[in-house]
Amino acid sequence: MKVGFGIPLCFSSTLKPQSLCHSYLTPPTPLPVQPLPPPIFHSRPCLPIPRHTPITSFFASSMASSFKPEQARFKIGLCQLLVTADKERNIAHARQAIEDAAKRGAQLVVLPEIWNSPISSDSFPVYAEDIDAGGDASPSTTMLSEVASLLKITIVGGSIPERCGDKLYNTCCVFDTDGKLKAKHRKIHLFDIDIPGKISFQESKTFTAGENPTVVDTEVGRIGIGICYDIRFQELAMLYAARGAHLICYPGAFNMTTGPLHWELFQRARAVDNQLYVATCSPARDAGAVYVAWGHSTLVGPFGEILVTTEHEEAIIISEVDYSQIELRRTSLPLEKQRRGDLYQLVDVQRLNS
Amino acid sequence: MKVGFGIPLCFSSTLKPQSLCHSYLTPPTPLPVQPLPPPIFHSRPCLPIPRHTPITSFFASSMASSFKPEQARFKIGLCQLLVTADKERNIAHARQAIEDAAKRGAQLVVLPEIWNSPISSDSFPVYAEDIDAGGDASPSTTMLSEVASLLKITIVGGSIPERCGDKLYNTCCVFDTDGKLKAKHRKIHLFDIDIPGKISFQESKTFTAGENPTVVDTEVGRIGIGICYDIRFQELAMLYAARGAHLICYPGAFNMTTGPLHWELFQRARAVDNQLYVATCSPARDAGAVYVAWGHSTLVGPFGEILVTTEHEEAIIISEVDYSQIELRRTSLPLEKQRRGDLYQLVDVQRLNS
Repeated sequence: MKVGFGIPLCFSSTLKPQSLCHSYLTPPTPLPVQPLPPPIFHSRPCLPIPRHTPITSFFASSMASSFKPEQARFKIGLCQLLVTADKERNIAHARQAIEDAAKRGAQLVVLPEIWNSPISSDSFPVYAEDIDAGGDASPSTTMLSEVASLLKITIVGGSIPERCGDKLYNTCCVFDTDGKLKAKHRKIHLFDIDIPGKISFQESKTFTAGENPTVVDTEVGRIGIGICYDIRFQELAMLYAARGAHLICYPGAFNMTTGPLHWELFQRARAVDNQLYVATCSPARDAGAVYVAWGHSTLVGPFGEILVTTEHEEAIIISEVDYSQIELRRTSLPLEKQRRGDLYQLVDVQRLNS
Repeated sequence: MKVGFGIPLCFSSTLKPQSLCHSYLTPPTPLPVQPLPPPIFHSRPCLPIPRHTPITSFFASSMASSFKPEQARFKIGLCQLLVTADKERNIAHARQAIEDAAKRGAQLVVLPEIWNSPISSDSFPVYAEDIDAGGDASPSTTMLSEVASLLKITIVGGSIPERCGDKLYNTCCVFDTDGKLKAKHRKIHLFDIDIPGKISFQESKTFTAGENPTVVDTEVGRIGIGICYDIRFQELAMLYAARGAHLICYPGAFNMTTGPLHWELFQRARAVDNQLYVATCSPARDAGAVYVAWGHSTLVGPFGEILVTTEHEEAIIISEVDYSQIELRRTSLPLEKQRRGDLYQLVDVQRLNS
């Protein structure tokens, strides 16, 4: 079978696919913890460029690289946690949930967005931690590292407010089975919304936006990370698919307006459009909180099918991920081959400039 | 209000928005009937390009141009027609449905994919018409032209099999209120699917793929056209949004496998991701047909909300389109401004090369 631009898609039909990626031209590259970002500018201007220049080699669809996960079939646990104002309790509570998920067989555990702090602009600077310093400066991620190592599981650690110098970020840490911090994703798209009478929230008043898409190779697959509002930007998921992600994890806390309208829609659309798994994890709903989360953590398969979901209460839900389903769907509907690169192409700008 | 790269989004708050487009750099260009396409090649190779070349001016997001529709609020009619093997009956039946929709106030009428012929590879060459020759060589589009002119309405004429030389296309014609053929969209992505035990269909064995995205300026807005499987490719909708479309019409005939799974999902995702209207029109279901259509023609608003839909039986459904809703949604959630052009960009390849 050939996919893409005449380059073989090297799936096997076993449970350990040789590659699940889109068409690709370059070998895999290590994905280290990201360096500190440069200063950011919102609403970035386009640089001038001469017209009629042929372009193609930096298109996202040609950038994916192969990666063979050790586990192509495994259990995932989504911990929809009730978060309180008591940070120590939140950390202990999250640890207990992770342990419970692991006891139920989860080899990958996902936590919610902002699970150690209330979701409010006032709280973020108070609860923020210096993740790079680690140890006592970051008790939340220290716990995640310890428990990942102890239980030999991979953790996509939801997100916590991160302090770095004089800036705050909304940051997701990924730990491997040795407890090593494998990746740190700082929310790229900050949630600035104003729907009169419904919701107004300006996340960018508190947080600084991240500068890097995050794809990380783990024992349980190549995982792309987005945080909440990042899911609304289809280009990010396309970019992750093109980089060969098997699964995109979106810790998120959609609200009571956009939650019922769009939360499930986005998860299913990102999964089926890119033919990969999507996992989301929300805080449990606290009707008395300043920001009321919709809940409904979910795992979606590569055909847009909901594999497990829950309501708004606190819950630990477990489901099986089977990457051979990606192969199956991409064989049935070879979208990558059918794409019209002569009409449109997504550019992965960082790869272009690297 | 500013949107995008410092370029004003010139909405008014009235029912006649001055512009509904994404950020834009170039003035509007006329959108003629498309020329005959060059030979096509499936799975097109990427051309080599020097790396480290700055790129930006051909990105889709910088290509949209302004357009002021005469009607920013109007009624749309979706005619979900039962199609038979009797072509003359199909044409008369479609005409009657268009007249009925117009009587109910529709100023824009949309027909289904393949409404003059059964959906089967054997039928397509038999029912195909020479649209460019017109007159008796194309009784289906001659009828559409006449009725559009007579009723002073815009028609997105679903699709019919088109014969052009020795090739067949799955083609949608758009007629203005004077009965003029404004645009002809040949289905770009052909439906080749193989889900064992569910559905196997190789549209490319019969049809040749179109070579051009289609955006047409009408009295009822700037309309992007896709046919059925075209909806599965998110890039096309993104490209239409970037070219300033207010509405994307997808005549389509999803089947009994992908219909219940994906039909509504795609419509809502394309609408909410691009903050524009999406209208679809399917044939009514004929359980005895070789290809059984899902039905469920639908209008979706720019917040992903279903404004009108129907089941699988024959039906004419009417709903209001109000382009000020696009302004409202883009003001509440300024996605275009929030996009990270420093990380990803969609290239509109034809505009790049023009």
